Amino acid sequence: MDYKGRLQRVRIELCKNRVDAFLVTHLPNVRYLCGFSGSSGLLVVGERQNIFFTDGRYTEEAREEVQGARIKIKSGKSALAATMEWLSRQAGIRRLGIEASHLTVADRNLLSKSLPRSAKLVKAPPIIERLRMIKDSDEIAKIRAACLLGVDLFAKLLQVLQAGVRECEVAGKLEFAARKAGVDQMAFSTIVAGGPRSSLPHGRASSAPIPARGFVVCDFGVILAGYCSDMTRTVHIGSAPGDERLAYEAVYEAQQAALSAVKPGTAIGELDRVARKLLHNKNLSRFFTHSTGHGLGLEVHEAPRVAAGQAERLQPGMVITIEPGVYLPGKFGVRIEDTVVVTERGCEILTPCSKELLTV
Amino acid sequence: MDYKGRLQRVRIELCKNRVDAFLVTHLPNVRYLCGFSGSSGLLVVGERQNIFFTDGRYTEEAREEVQGARIKIKSGKSALAATMEWLSRQAGIRRLGIEASHLTVADRNLLSKSLPRSAKLVKAPPIIERLRMIKDSDEIAKIRAACLLGVDLFAKLLQVLQAGVRECEVAGKLEFAARKAGVDQMAFSTIVAGGPRSSLPHGRASSAPIPARGFVVCDFGVILAGYCSDMTRTVHIGSAPGDERLAYEAVYEAQQAALSAVKPGTAIGELDRVARKLLHNKNLSRFFTHSTGHGLGLEVHEAPRVAAGQAERLQPGMVITIEPGVYLPGKFGVRIEDTVVVTERGCEILTPCSKELLTV
Repeated sequence: MDYKGRLQRVRIELCKNRVDAFLVTHLPNVRYLCGFSGSSGLLVVGERQNIFFTDGRYTEEAREEVQGARIKIKSGKSALAATMEWLSRQAGIRRLGIEASHLTVADRNLLSKSLPRSAKLVKAPPIIERLRMIKDSDEIAKIRAACLLGVDLFAKLLQVLQAGVRECEVAGKLEFAARKAGVDQMAFSTIVAGGPRSSLPHGRASSAPIPARGFVVCDFGVILAGYCSDMTRTVHIGSAPGDERLAYEAVYEAQQAALSAVKPGTAIGELDRVARKLLHNKNLSRFFTHSTGHGLGLEVHEAPRVAAGQAERLQPGMVITIEPGVYLPGKFGVRIEDTVVVTERGCEILTPCSKELLTV
Repeated sequence: MDYKGRLQRVRIELCKNRVDAFLVTHLPNVRYLCGFSGSSGLLVVGERQNIFFTDGRYTEEAREEVQGARIKIKSGKSALAATMEWLSRQAGIRRLGIEASHLTVADRNLLSKSLPRSAKLVKAPPIIERLRMIKDSDEIAKIRAACLLGVDLFAKLLQVLQAGVRECEVAGKLEFAARKAGVDQMAFSTIVAGGPRSSLPHGRASSAPIPARGFVVCDFGVILAGYCSDMTRTVHIGSAPGDERLAYEAVYEAQQAALSAVKPGTAIGELDRVARKLLHNKNLSRFFTHSTGHGLGLEVHEAPRVAAGQAERLQPGMVITIEPGVYLPGKFGVRIEDTVVVTERGCEILTPCSKELLTV
């Protein structure tokens, strides 16, 4: 990973914003800039030096992982407390940038007490989030690997998916296979939602048995070597009645239409508009109750948003999901989701896996 | 769960702090007060009414779960955006309490823009965290169930733990058994760290095989019906050499001593002091690089802190972990952890499972 290049680009942005040092507290941002993967750490990006703070639990990991920054660990002190102690001696810092979207009000107040008199806290723009939005080739390779593993896992899920098996057992089989394949962890609580539960857009796998007939929404993601995958397929147990078949086809077409609209230069809101319009034509848009997708990388939800009205334009290297769905409360739900990377001419689907209506 | 009583107690604290309405944004706190278990929601606790805001994805869950509050969902709007819209019309609110330890600086700034002129944001004290610190009988029953499941799972883990099996496979078996037992999810990334990796206090299960000889630290927790478990056992593959045996005994005695010190009225820092002193006597305290424990409930880490110098006194109903450990970098590590509930006279261990040195 090109940590050096990333830190350099951050430093240029800091210079433009007249920020002397930038306190990076959001862990995925810390990892993006210096490689640290633990659960507690802070990175200060300065004009001449970068310093990484963590606590005693991560002494060994920090030495192994952190690149491009000096490591400071104060025994018995949290990363934030160690940072504050260091900051109190930095007379040269006038404007200290903070990540306003991640730092809590309480930590901000604590921090401001430890600053030298001459310094003040300033809200930095989302510099790192914007860099992370465009993935480099190392990152795309990692996301591709995570997504391909996801496709394999779905095949394993299908081996156990049948009426009577509990949703949590289906999810468990998939997660166990993921573990054996070496994932760090699942990217979010696995969704396996059968029958009427499929109408819950976030129907986490429960103890309910897969019903004898009806849709089952399967939405899952892994984190492999730090990078996420995300895909959804909806299968039907038994043959699908007409209204369910029509809903599936509508979602399928909406997803296809949004995928076809992905190319550099397109306003991202257009993807949402295209998908929603197709569902509107079939009188289903009122059941499409979430946005069309989201960016994905070190986090399962990151920039850009793929939602109505987003003026941000697609660029090569962006990785997003396209996941329209319809949810008829108490009846059924359908969602189809792929992860794609924007290419020079369109997009590459990173989750290559049939989307024809599969009946089990 | 006694949501009504909890909301009532919060309201009394708000009155004492002259707060007209309290914006509860931390999801475990939202769940504690009204039962909502989803990933996006906000609760406003007011003098005369409580209102719960979420987004379109959670329409059905909110109706099923939320108690003691009116539900508001604005189609296409986030919970925060819907809250802001509502707040802008509440002329009666003068002092709106926020959770400074959870709300981000950016959201705070957004919020303050939507307030009526007459209103201002005030940092509320950690009212809900302090209520949550003392578990009621429903909660203790849930934590007990989660911990007993943890003990069962450890027995399952032992069935597969042997030299050559990869750490992630050991963790995967345990997690699959947890899934089948109906857990919501694991409480944190399962730690299975063998041989020299056992010296990483947070050695998440990796692809490394369990070595032919050496310690294996196993630290895991489940979330069952919303409540966490947490336990650690360290086993030895092959017979343990003298230095490893001594280290194990030292940690065992330190843990035992801290457990014996648990009773109402004791300053919590005393537990840390007792454990650390025993390790100090054996020249091992410099390898004990973390605090002695933490509170546990809806979150795996919550109040009270079980660390050096904590003056807070133990009270019946507090649930905490006691988990001293020593970590000799590049050599080996040992940790032993139980979850306990403070009783009228001492404590009850919720994770009853042998702590004798087990060799596999």
